[in-house]
Amino acid sequence: MNAAPVFALPTVLLEPLVRATLTEDLGRAGDITSDAIIGAEVQSELFLVARETGVLAGIDLARLAFELMDAKVEFEPLMADGAALQKGSRIARIKGSARAILSAERTALNFLCHLSGIASATADIAQRIAPYGCKVTCTRKTTPMLRSVEKYAVRVGGGSNHRFGLDDAVLIKDNHIAIAGSLTVAVERARAAIGHMVKIEVEVDTLTQLDEALAIGVDVILLDNMDTDTLVEAVKRIDGRAVSEASGGITPDTAAAVAATGVDRIAIGWITHSTKILDIGLDAI
Amino acid sequence: MNAAPVFALPTVLLEPLVRATLTEDLGRAGDITSDAIIGAEVQSELFLVARETGVLAGIDLARLAFELMDAKVEFEPLMADGAALQKGSRIARIKGSARAILSAERTALNFLCHLSGIASATADIAQRIAPYGCKVTCTRKTTPMLRSVEKYAVRVGGGSNHRFGLDDAVLIKDNHIAIAGSLTVAVERARAAIGHMVKIEVEVDTLTQLDEALAIGVDVILLDNMDTDTLVEAVKRIDGRAVSEASGGITPDTAAAVAATGVDRIAIGWITHSTKILDIGLDAI
Amino acid sequence: MNAAPVFALPTVLLEPLVRATLTEDLGRAGDITSDAIIGAEVQSELFLVARETGVLAGIDLARLAFELMDAKVEFEPLMADGAALQKGSRIARIKGSARAILSAERTALNFLCHLSGIASATADIAQRIAPYGCKVTCTRKTTPMLRSVEKYAVRVGGGSNHRFGLDDAVLIKDNHIAIAGSLTVAVERARAAIGHMVKIEVEVDTLTQLDEALAIGVDVILLDNMDTDTLVEAVKRIDGRAVSEASGGITPDTAAAVAATGVDRIAIGWITHSTKILDIGLDAI
Amino acid sequence: MNAAPVFALPTVLLEPLVRATLTEDLGRAGDITSDAIIGAEVQSELFLVARETGVLAGIDLARLAFELMDAKVEFEPLMADGAALQKGSRIARIKGSARAILSAERTALNFLCHLSGIASATADIAQRIAPYGCKVTCTRKTTPMLRSVEKYAVRVGGGSNHRFGLDDAVLIKDNHIAIAGSLTVAVERARAAIGHMVKIEVEVDTLTQLDEALAIGVDVILLDNMDTDTLVEAVKRIDGRAVSEASGGITPDTAAAVAATGVDRIAIGWITHSTKILDIGLDAI
Amino acid sequence: MNAAPVFALPTVLLEPLVRATLTEDLGRAGDITSDAIIGAEVQSELFLVARETGVLAGIDLARLAFELMDAKVEFEPLMADGAALQKGSRIARIKGSARAILSAERTALNFLCHLSGIASATADIAQRIAPYGCKVTCTRKTTPMLRSVEKYAVRVGGGSNHRFGLDDAVLIKDNHIAIAGSLTVAVERARAAIGHMVKIEVEVDTLTQLDEALAIGVDVILLDNMDTDTLVEAVKRIDGRAVSEASGGITPDTAAAVAATGVDRIAIGWITHSTKILDIGLDAI
Amino acid sequence: MNAAPVFALPTVLLEPLVRATLTEDLGRAGDITSDAIIGAEVQSELFLVARETGVLAGIDLARLAFELMDAKVEFEPLMADGAALQKGSRIARIKGSARAILSAERTALNFLCHLSGIASATADIAQRIAPYGCKVTCTRKTTPMLRSVEKYAVRVGGGSNHRFGLDDAVLIKDNHIAIAGSLTVAVERARAAIGHMVKIEVEVDTLTQLDEALAIGVDVILLDNMDTDTLVEAVKRIDGRAVSEASGGITPDTAAAVAATGVDRIAIGWITHSTKILDIGLDAI
Repeated sequence: MNAAPVFALPTVLLEPLVRATLTEDLGRAGDITSDAIIGAEVQSELFLVARETGVLAGIDLARLAFELMDAKVEFEPLMADGAALQKGSRIARIKGSARAILSAERTALNFLCHLSGIASATADIAQRIAPYGCKVTCTRKTTPMLRSVEKYAVRVGGGSNHRFGLDDAVLIKDNHIAIAGSLTVAVERARAAIGHMVKIEVEVDTLTQLDEALAIGVDVILLDNMDTDTLVEAVKRIDGRAVSEASGGITPDTAAAVAATGVDRIAIGWITHSTKILDIGLDAI
Repeated sequence: MNAAPVFALPTVLLEPLVRATLTEDLGRAGDITSDAIIGAEVQSELFLVARETGVLAGIDLARLAFELMDAKVEFEPLMADGAALQKGSRIARIKGSARAILSAERTALNFLCHLSGIASATADIAQRIAPYGCKVTCTRKTTPMLRSVEKYAVRVGGGSNHRFGLDDAVLIKDNHIAIAGSLTVAVERARAAIGHMVKIEVEVDTLTQLDEALAIGVDVILLDNMDTDTLVEAVKRIDGRAVSEASGGITPDTAAAVAATGVDRIAIGWITHSTKILDIGLDAI
Repeated sequence: MNAAPVFALPTVLLEPLVRATLTEDLGRAGDITSDAIIGAEVQSELFLVARETGVLAGIDLARLAFELMDAKVEFEPLMADGAALQKGSRIARIKGSARAILSAERTALNFLCHLSGIASATADIAQRIAPYGCKVTCTRKTTPMLRSVEKYAVRVGGGSNHRFGLDDAVLIKDNHIAIAGSLTVAVERARAAIGHMVKIEVEVDTLTQLDEALAIGVDVILLDNMDTDTLVEAVKRIDGRAVSEASGGITPDTAAAVAATGVDRIAIGWITHSTKILDIGLDAI
Repeated sequence: MNAAPVFALPTVLLEPLVRATLTEDLGRAGDITSDAIIGAEVQSELFLVARETGVLAGIDLARLAFELMDAKVEFEPLMADGAALQKGSRIARIKGSARAILSAERTALNFLCHLSGIASATADIAQRIAPYGCKVTCTRKTTPMLRSVEKYAVRVGGGSNHRFGLDDAVLIKDNHIAIAGSLTVAVERARAAIGHMVKIEVEVDTLTQLDEALAIGVDVILLDNMDTDTLVEAVKRIDGRAVSEASGGITPDTAAAVAATGVDRIAIGWITHSTKILDIGLDAI
Repeated sequence: MNAAPVFALPTVLLEPLVRATLTEDLGRAGDITSDAIIGAEVQSELFLVARETGVLAGIDLARLAFELMDAKVEFEPLMADGAALQKGSRIARIKGSARAILSAERTALNFLCHLSGIASATADIAQRIAPYGCKVTCTRKTTPMLRSVEKYAVRVGGGSNHRFGLDDAVLIKDNHIAIAGSLTVAVERARAAIGHMVKIEVEVDTLTQLDEALAIGVDVILLDNMDTDTLVEAVKRIDGRAVSEASGGITPDTAAAVAATGVDRIAIGWITHSTKILDIGLDAI
Repeated sequence: MNAAPVFALPTVLLEPLVRATLTEDLGRAGDITSDAIIGAEVQSELFLVARETGVLAGIDLARLAFELMDAKVEFEPLMADGAALQKGSRIARIKGSARAILSAERTALNFLCHLSGIASATADIAQRIAPYGCKVTCTRKTTPMLRSVEKYAVRVGGGSNHRFGLDDAVLIKDNHIAIAGSLTVAVERARAAIGHMVKIEVEVDTLTQLDEALAIGVDVILLDNMDTDTLVEAVKRIDGRAVSEASGGITPDTAAAVAATGVDRIAIGWITHSTKILDIGLDAI
C-alpha cells in the first residue's frame, strides 16, 4: 500500500490514549458482565478478523488495549498496519484470560475500526490519483484528541499529511487576507515573523490571487474551489515554483479528474471527519 | 426534536475535553498564522452558520473553545442544541479578538460538526421509527474518549442511550454464554453478583434462546440479526415481560420495517461510529 | 465470606490511585529517613500481618504500592481479598530492597487498612442479616476519589453495591418530588428521559407515598426512616413488585431487626464513611 | 477553638481535588435524576445545616463543589472553619439553579462531613489535654490522596501537624535502627545526610533507648507504647532537651492521663483514619 | 527590540505550567510562614522591579502566578514583554492580599527571571549580528518541559525559532547519514516520507558534503563547526539556493565574525540551556 | 565527591517528568527524521560521553528516556551519579533500535547536561569551602517544575538542601517582619502556628536584628548581605545556639572568604538558576 515509511507513533504517545479510553469504558466498576460470568482462570484464544475489504491501521493501539488490561495477555500480530484486508483476514491472535480479553475488546476495536476506516478511505483515493503523480492530503478537520493517530492512519493509507496544528506551518486563508488588506501584506507579515524551518501556504480563490501569490513567493498554494479548467491554468502558471494543492468538495469520484489537472496534492477533510469504520471483529476462529 | 430533557453535560465534564483539543491544535507555538498577520487589537464579529440541514448538537463545547482561548470573547448562542438547522441558519454570534476567534475556530467546529452529524443521523432514524413507538439506541461503538459527548448527541437527536460502559449494566453476549455453558447459567451468575440498581440484558440469536431468556427472566432482550418475521414472533413471545431491542445491520432504510415488528428499541452503532459531519462554518455574515 | 464474584478492579483503574498516593507521601525528596540510614544493597523480607480479626480487602493496591516503588520487589500474596483475618494472620510476604519496602509501607497500609475496615464492617452486618435473605448496600456517601475501591471493599465484605454515581441509575428523593409537584410526575419525567438500561428508585417516607410509587411503578423503593412495623406493612404492600430498600439510621445493632421485616436491602452509609480501619502492620516475622 | 492561624489551603491546591470528586460522581452522563425532573430554570435556596455538635472544617471545598458545578450559584458562608456547630447550625446559604445545587450536593457533603468529623474528633482530644499544655498531633495514617486536607482539618480542630510525608522530616523507627545496628548510628547517618532545615525524630521503646537518643541528641523523641509511669520518667530525663511525643494506642479516654505525664505531644492516628463523619445536610430551611 | 510579532502564547497553554509550578512550591500545606505571620486581611502593593539591564520576557506567566494564587489580586503590567529593562525599571504593580502575593512571589519570579535571562542573552547576540542581516536561532537544547516558553523568550529577544520538536521539521545529522549510507540517500528517504508542509535541513561538515546537499536540494543547510573562511566559501556555493545556518561553539564574542561570513542564521544552544537569570525582584516601592 | 547518601529519587517521581519531556519533543508525529531514514531493524550501540570535566547527575532520568521510548533498549550505566567526569569519560552504554535511541537522545541529554551542570557548579563551591567545615546550600530559586531533580543534583554535587517549598520549613523575611511589626512578633506567631517537626529560620540584616533573633530563639539564622567582618561577629554572637547561614551575592570566588568567617552554610541561588550545562554527548565510540 505504502512503500515509504509511515512514521509509526511510539508507545509513549499512544499509551495515554489507550489508558484514557479503557478507563472511559471500564468506568467505576469494570466489566461487570465478564467478571460475574467468567472465572478468573478461564483462558481464551481469539482472533481479530476483518469483516470487509480495506487497509489495516492501528494495530499497536489494539495491542496496548489488551496489554494494559492484563500484562499477561499474549498479543501476536499476524499482519502489519498498511496490510490489505479481505473479509476473513486474520489480523492478530490474542491469548490469555478470557475476562481480560473481553473487557478490552471494545476499546481495541473502537481504535482499530476507526483508524482502519480512515486508512481504507485514504487508500481508495490514493490509488485513484496515483497515476497522475498526485497525493491525497488530510486537513485539521480531525476528531478531537485523535489528531496524531488519525494523521497516522492517513499515512498508512498512502496519504500525505498536511500540517499537524496551528503551530507547525503557516496557512493564510481569506480571513487573514481580508484583515491584512492584501495577500501580499499577509505573506510579508508571516515571512517576517516565522522561523526558517516553517513553510508558508496561501489559499487562493482566483487566478488573479494566484498571480499575486506567485509574485510574492510562497512554498505551497492552496487552489480552493476551482473547476478543473481553472486548475489546469493554475498549474501551468505555478510551473513548479510552489507545491500546488487543490481543495473544495472533492470526492472519491471526482478525485481522479482533479488529479489529472496536474496538481501535486488534493486535500480532502472527509477522510478524517466523515469516514465510516472498517468492520473488524473479535472471533473465536 | 426532543421534548424530554437531554441531560446537558456540565462544564466540569466538558472543559477537560475542550482544553485537551485546543492544546492539541495550538501545539507548542500557538496559531502562528493569525498571530503574525492579525494585530492583537483587531476585533471581529463572526457567526457559526449551518451549511446544510440537520440537528444542532455541541454548542456548549463550541462556546468553551472560544472562551478558553480568550475569556473576553463574547459568545451569544442564537439557537440551542436540538434545534433544526437549515442551510444558512445562524447558530451563534461570536465577537472579540480576531486572533483568538480564528485560533479557536477549528476546535469549536470539530466538536460541533462531529456531534451535530451524530444528532442529525440519529434524528433521521428517530423520525422514521417514531410512528411505531420505537426508539433508536446507541451502542458502545463510540469514538475513543468521546463517549460522553457522543451519547449526549444521540439524546439531542431524539435517540435513547444504551449503557455508557462495561460497568453500569450487564449485557450477556454469545461469548459469555459459551463460557458459562448456557444462557441460564450466565444469567444466574450475573444476577447473583450484581447490585439491585443494575439491569440485565441478554443477547439471543434464536427463538429457542429467547424462550430460555424469558424463562430465567431478564430486563432487556437483544434480538440479534433476526429477520422481521422472527422479530414479530419474538415480540409476541416477550409480551411485555422484558424490553425488546433489535440489532444487526439495521440501516436508515430498513429501520422502519424493523420498528414495525413491534420491538421497543433499535440499536444502531453506525450513528456514533460512521456518520459524516454536519457542515457548519464560521462566517463573517 | 462471599461466594459470588466481587468484580476485582483491573490494574488500569487502580494504578493511578496508587501512583497519586505514593507521590503524595514521597513529596519532593522521597523517603529521606530510609535513604539516609539504609544502604541501597540491604534486602529485607517482611510480612503484612493482621493485628485484629476482620476481612481482607485491597491486596492489589498494596501490591502495586510496593511494585511501583521498586519493580524488583517480590510481593507474594498469602491470602486473597475476602479472606477472614485473625490476629497474626500473614497476608503477604514482601521481599526486596529494604529501602523500597519501607518507603512504600505507609501507602500500602493506608489503602489496605482503610479498605479492610470497610469490608470488615460490611461483613459484620452482612452476617447479621443473611438469615433473613437481606443484603446490606452502600450509598454515595464515600470518601472523595475512593468510590470505586470503597464500593469494591463493600462487595468483598459481602455487601451489595448501590449506584456508583449520579449517572448510572435514577434515585428520586424528597427534593425532586417537591420540585416536580408529585411523586408521580417525578417518576414520569424520569421514565420519559432515561434509557432502557437504567433503573428507577424512589424514596418514600410514608405508606401513602409508597402506594403512589407502586401505582406508577418503579424498580426499587427506598423506605426511608420507617419503624419496623411500618416496614412490615410496606413490604406486604410491595409484594414483590419492586425491590425494597430500608434506610435511615440503621446500625449494626438494629440491622437484624430491620432485616426481619422482609426488606430486600438495607442501605447503610456508615460502612463507607465512618468505619474505623482494620489494623494491619508490616512485620519482620 | 483555635486562636492560632490554621493555614487555610489555597484554591490552586483544593480545586483539583474537588474537580476529581465531582467527576467521580457525575460519571459519563451527569445527574440524570435532577436533569430529568427539574427544569433548567428552577431556582432554589438551600442551607448547609449541622445535624449534630462538632467543629466545622472544609467549607472552601464545599463552596468549590457548587461553584465548579455552576459558576452562577451563590455560596454565602454563614460560619467559618473552626466554628463550633450545634444541631441546626446554619453553615452556608446556597442559591441558584436547583439542578446544579442538587448535582453538587453529595460532593460538597462528602468533603465537609469527612473533614468536620476529623476536626471534631481532634477538638475533643485537644480540649481534654489542653490543661496539661499538651497538643494532639496527627500521623501519616491518612486517607489516600486526602493528606493535605485531612491535616488541615486537624489544625482546624486545634491539633498540631506531624510531618506531611516521607520527605519533610526524619523519623527513625525500629526497622531503621535494626538495620543501622544501633540508634546512635542511625541518627548519625541521618544527620550527615539531611539539610539544615530538617528535624530528626527518633522512636524509642525503652528508657535505655531514650538515654541513647538523648546522648546523641535529636529534635523530637517519640515515646512509643510506654505506660504513664515510664512516660513520667522519660519526660524527666528529657528535661526540655527535645520535644517529647507519646504514641501507641492512646484513645480519647486515656489522652488526659497521658498528657498529665508532661509529654509535649500525643500522636493519635485514629483522628485521621478512623473517625466517623460529622453529620451535615443540605436543607430547604 | 523586535518589530515583528512574537507570537504570545495563549493562556490555555501557559496556565498548566503555572499551576504545576505553584503546586510544586506550595506543597502539602501552602506558605506556612506567610499564613502564620500575616493576617488574611492585610493588603499590600508591591512592584516587580528589574535589578539589572536586560529584556523583559514572561510577564503573562508572572501575572498568572498571582491570579491563580488569588483571583482578587490586581496585576497591572507597566511594561510589555520585549521592553528594555534598566536597573530599577518597574515592570508591574501588584495589589491585594499580602499573603497571596508573597505566596506566589517565587513562582512568578522563577518564570520571569529565567525567561528574561534567555530574552536578554538572545537580544545581546541579535544586536551584534543584525548589521549583517543575520539572525540568531535556538535549538532543541531547552530545559525539560519549558520548550514552548523558552522558545517564546527567544522570539521576544529578537531571535528566530528553529524547529519545536522532532516532528515539525526534518534535520538530518551525521548519525542519519551514516546509517543511510550517504547524504543523498538520507535526503531522498526523508523527502519520500514527509508531507508537503515540512522543511528539510541537512547538517554538513565539509564543502564536499555541502556540494552533495546542494545537488540533491534541501531547504536549509546546517554548516557545522566550519571556520569563517570555509563559511564564506559555503555561503558562496549555496548562493541563495537554501537557507544557510552556522553552528558549533559560537559565542557572543565570535557571533559577529560568523555573521559577517554571510550566513542567514547562527544557531546557539547556549541561549536556552546555559544563560543566567535576569535579576528581578518584588519590592515595596 | 559525596560520602553521605544523596537520596536518589524513586522512579515513581522521575517517570512523569521524563514522559512529559519526551512527549514535548515527540510532538504529534514523533521523530520524523529518524523514522524516515532509519529502518526499524537497524541496531546501534552508542555511548553517553562527557565532553568536559565535571560531576555526573541525572543518569536515572537519561535511562528512563531511552527505556520509555523503547522498552527493548539496553541501558548499561558505566558510572554513577556523583562520579567525577573527565573529557571522554564514558557514562553509559546504550544498545538497541537506532531509531529509538536517536529519538530519545535529546530528552536524555537535556536532563543529564542540565543536572550535571548544577552538580558540577555545586561541587566546585563545595570543595572551596569544605576546609572551613561549611556547606553550600541551594534556594527556592529553581527552574519551574524541576525543583525535585535540581535539589537532587545539588546533593549529588556535595551541597546541602535548603527547604523544598513554602510548606516544609518557616523562613521569615523582611516583608514578614515589616507586616508583623517586629522580628520577635513574627517568630512568636510562627512558633504558635507550626507543628513540632518544622524548623524556623529568620533572615537578619544587622547585628541588632541578630540579637533580637537570638533572644527569641530560632533554629537557623540567615545572615543576609553582611560583609565578612560582620559575619565573624555574627558567628561569635550566635555561638552555636542556631545554625548560621550566609547569603547575598556570594560567588565561587568569594565563597571561601565567606566560609572562613565560620558560618555553617552558604546559600547560593546561582547553582540552580544560572549554571551552564555540562557538555555530554551521545557518541558512536
